[in-house]
Amino acid sequence: MIQTLHKKSTTRRSYYRAVPPREQNLKIIPLGGLEEVGRNMTVFEYGQDIVVIDMGLQFPEEDMPGIDYIIPNTAYLQEKAKNIRGVIITHGHYDHIGAIPHIMPKIGNPPIYTAALTAAIIKKRQEDYPNGTHLNFKVVRKKDRLRLGCFEAEFFRLNHNIPDSLGVALHTPVGTVVYTGDFKFDHSPVGDEPADIAHLAQLGARGVLLLMSDSTDADTPGYSISEKTIQDTLDDIFKNADGRIIAATFSSLISRLQELIYLAEKYHRKVVVDGYSMKTNVEIARNLGYLKVKKETLINIERLHDWPDNKILVLCTGAQGEGRAVLMRIVNKEHRFIRIKTGDTVIFSSSVIPGNERTVQHVKDTLSRHGAKIIHYQMMDVHAGGHAQVEDLKMMINLVRPKFFIPIHGNYYMLKLHAELARTVGVPEKNIVIPDNGQVVEVTAKNIRLTDKRAPTNYIMVDGLGIGDVGQVVLRDRQMMSKDGMFTIIVIIDGKTGKIIQDPDIISRGFIYMKESGELLAQTKRKVKQIIAQKTKETPINWAYIRSTLRDSIGQFLYSKTQRRPMILPVVIEV
Amino acid sequence: MIQTLHKKSTTRRSYYRAVPPREQNLKIIPLGGLEEVGRNMTVFEYGQDIVVIDMGLQFPEEDMPGIDYIIPNTAYLQEKAKNIRGVIITHGHYDHIGAIPHIMPKIGNPPIYTAALTAAIIKKRQEDYPNGTHLNFKVVRKKDRLRLGCFEAEFFRLNHNIPDSLGVALHTPVGTVVYTGDFKFDHSPVGDEPADIAHLAQLGARGVLLLMSDSTDADTPGYSISEKTIQDTLDDIFKNADGRIIAATFSSLISRLQELIYLAEKYHRKVVVDGYSMKTNVEIARNLGYLKVKKETLINIERLHDWPDNKILVLCTGAQGEGRAVLMRIVNKEHRFIRIKTGDTVIFSSSVIPGNERTVQHVKDTLSRHGAKIIHYQMMDVHAGGHAQVEDLKMMINLVRPKFFIPIHGNYYMLKLHAELARTVGVPEKNIVIPDNGQVVEVTAKNIRLTDKRAPTNYIMVDGLGIGDVGQVVLRDRQMMSKDGMFTIIVIIDGKTGKIIQDPDIISRGFIYMKESGELLAQTKRKVKQIIAQKTKETPINWAYIRSTLRDSIGQFLYSKTQRRPMILPVVIEV
Repeated sequence: MIQTLHKKSTTRRSYYRAVPPREQNLKIIPLGGLEEVGRNMTVFEYGQDIVVIDMGLQFPEEDMPGIDYIIPNTAYLQEKAKNIRGVIITHGHYDHIGAIPHIMPKIGNPPIYTAALTAAIIKKRQEDYPNGTHLNFKVVRKKDRLRLGCFEAEFFRLNHNIPDSLGVALHTPVGTVVYTGDFKFDHSPVGDEPADIAHLAQLGARGVLLLMSDSTDADTPGYSISEKTIQDTLDDIFKNADGRIIAATFSSLISRLQELIYLAEKYHRKVVVDGYSMKTNVEIARNLGYLKVKKETLINIERLHDWPDNKILVLCTGAQGEGRAVLMRIVNKEHRFIRIKTGDTVIFSSSVIPGNERTVQHVKDTLSRHGAKIIHYQMMDVHAGGHAQVEDLKMMINLVRPKFFIPIHGNYYMLKLHAELARTVGVPEKNIVIPDNGQVVEVTAKNIRLTDKRAPTNYIMVDGLGIGDVGQVVLRDRQMMSKDGMFTIIVIIDGKTGKIIQDPDIISRGFIYMKESGELLAQTKRKVKQIIAQKTKETPINWAYIRSTLRDSIGQFLYSKTQRRPMILPVVIEV
Repeated sequence: MIQTLHKKSTTRRSYYRAVPPREQNLKIIPLGGLEEVGRNMTVFEYGQDIVVIDMGLQFPEEDMPGIDYIIPNTAYLQEKAKNIRGVIITHGHYDHIGAIPHIMPKIGNPPIYTAALTAAIIKKRQEDYPNGTHLNFKVVRKKDRLRLGCFEAEFFRLNHNIPDSLGVALHTPVGTVVYTGDFKFDHSPVGDEPADIAHLAQLGARGVLLLMSDSTDADTPGYSISEKTIQDTLDDIFKNADGRIIAATFSSLISRLQELIYLAEKYHRKVVVDGYSMKTNVEIARNLGYLKVKKETLINIERLHDWPDNKILVLCTGAQGEGRAVLMRIVNKEHRFIRIKTGDTVIFSSSVIPGNERTVQHVKDTLSRHGAKIIHYQMMDVHAGGHAQVEDLKMMINLVRPKFFIPIHGNYYMLKLHAELARTVGVPEKNIVIPDNGQVVEVTAKNIRLTDKRAPTNYIMVDGLGIGDVGQVVLRDRQMMSKDGMFTIIVIIDGKTGKIIQDPDIISRGFIYMKESGELLAQTKRKVKQIIAQKTKETPINWAYIRSTLRDSIGQFLYSKTQRRPMILPVVIEV
């Protein structure tokens, strides 16, 4: 837990007090999103006022088997829940909204300030949690300004691969903090407006104390590609496709869906939207006017065969080879209406997330076997990242001209590269800090510094209904069992005589194929009996010691025979 | 098992019979390397003569926890061991040599024909298997020709990222088969000679029946980059580095090591070679003259600090974040002599293998935190693949001008792309076949066809000392336990009364944190007792049925409470 430096204010806290006592600092506490990609959540605290930006989840790493996702630790906020004036959400992607259902009830359900599309996406997701909190939304528009305790928040328009992405200028008593969220500059976005560069320049002219900017693509040189360029590439694909086009992408990439729908309309193709999340997002975005689709364009999947193949576009999920997604069902011939055939063109319209390569490769192999033509971003650039690259990042810094700089959203390595960039465009090195997750940054009008105060930020893992109940012990056990399995030895002892009653039982899974390992098991049982016979001679009998001897000796024995180390679980039961 | 079409020859088979009976086909049986990257092994069979090319391993996929690697199934060959005239190995990488220690004893240890460096690498690896077979090597030189039963093998020089990579022209009774192995064309290789294009053209002029060519990079457009270009990029890095240079790469990329050593000598840096496999390979390659290093260049790591930082190059393993590699020890501050400090330049000189991204990211984060400058192939092209790209592949086909074409080395998707390429440069579609692993291809001078005969090719998994003893059952158990753990219920029953003797014992790992789940465990135990009480009323007591009821009911109960599905193992013991 963190000690606050300033004395507890004795005057009644006022929402309208614009200038609190001089000695106070602005505290910035990143609860996630640094040292990682995902789990974005940042706390801004001044005196008795707190504003939170974003509340995201992170997907588990390879060494976290069975974990659904990870959410930020909010112990720091829970103690100060009454001070939270509002939660600002920059856009509707899971790494920025995913932890809302889990965290909101713990911090007193403060109001959420966000754009219309983002609010609708959050609301829809909340329905997956039947006992979830009823959230309190305040929909903001780009350029809105609102007061949150001693803070004033001003929004500005940026581009990303989902519409309604907001940047935030947080006017604090020590100065203005510009927080980009995920962004890129797109001067010719499709179905969206360009980033409001003039507004950013204006903010810069008014004076910005601190810029906190997206580092996700800080290691990619050049400018990010405009969606228009991608549109042209896709246009070529549509022009040349003889049969059906099946486009697999994330349902959250609303901008990409819009492009594909435009092209379908241009080339007189009907559009089938398939997959629960895809349908939901299309519906939400369409209802709010963020997705423009002619009435007659969308058709129900059941009517798919009423049109010739070259008049059909299928939009579906599964570009990452996700097990239950539509594309996987098509590939596995489990889809009710679609089988791949020669002439089909399948577009993979998102880059492969590390860890999914082999699954995606398998999907491509099967599609290819069934005669489909496959187009993915390596062969033809149908993918543009949603994030600013090196030149865009420099431009952001040059527009905003901040005194201080904190790179956000990314691993340390990316943050460091981004810090280097900031230095090359003129931010003095001493004015740039790279905090760790949880590390409290103190900012005044003159100074920025990393303190050694830390909010807890250990991983809170969500697994099924359990939140935070899977910790290091459980994970380590899962890892161990996944490598070499487990080996349970059950020994029944006569409580009166201290003698073993019958042959030990052995239950083993994931170690060796038991039916073919009779000899090894017989040897192991003999060894167990020897150990028990020997160790029960001593009185008083020390069962804990016997169990640990069994664990060590049998573990050693099995390793010598197999070079595997199953988890050994000796169970001694007295009857 | 496969039926052979031809009748068993009744005449005594002769090594010198060049033209066997007319009706025979050449059979080609890929035992691995198609439908995958790795596990390369191909059988060529004509009458009573068999030649095998390569004997590689494949690294396990994500859903094979605990498996070390996978080797080809050689059941087909084991039955015909006496017919094997020789094994040709194209080059010394594990996906071409890795299965040798496991397979050779099973197929009668036939002679291995390969180049000097490859032979030395295989020999060295054989030392890791103390009870391994003594291998019988025949070292061949580029341009050598040798007779193997009715086959004649002719070698030609290609480039790859290890010296001594050979292509094979196998002259068979039905015509010449050109087998490329892994290759690229490099007109300015570093420390190696360019591919012998004239020789290939000559083969083409003499007439080639079938080309079998490397598809690993068939989805990458353009020409592969020459090592010279990479050399220039690396030169820049050396020129600008102020402190130590630490280059991490695979120890098998001998050509890359040569380049780094050249540059060290050019810029007057001493070279420290660290890591067991790195030292071994440098020694082997140097002894055979494949690696040119001045005597005074190499220094012992203990003398590292006798030179200023800007006079040092460290060559080490660990570019993939491998747990026990040198770079990992440096990062974890466990290395005896090296700690990262500001001024160090760390070069990651190989692309990241799918599945290793997060680990490599972690390594980079830590290096970056300690002040190192990091250079990896995304930022500056210090990596060139060892494989021919689209334009090189076309050139190979144009040089060899084969009648028939089989793409090899790669997933189906890549093979299909390569087949498409072949078609575009003039091989008729009907002359191109893409076999599955194990599928027997029959070739005559006039015809090529995929038969429906199949050799077994299921995965043989190597785990510790066990080869092939981990099958689908064991793997499935490992996967299941890795996701939600296991839950063993032990019930002791009085054999006389049929009553439960004491509270059931529960042993669970990887499911939930047991110490904090008292209530759930108590409920579960009550439920177990209820089930037993109820089901033991019926006589005779059906224990198998009771166990299966326990498994289902408790599984359901735990899922309803946690939405997790641990593996339930009910154990009922009568005493």
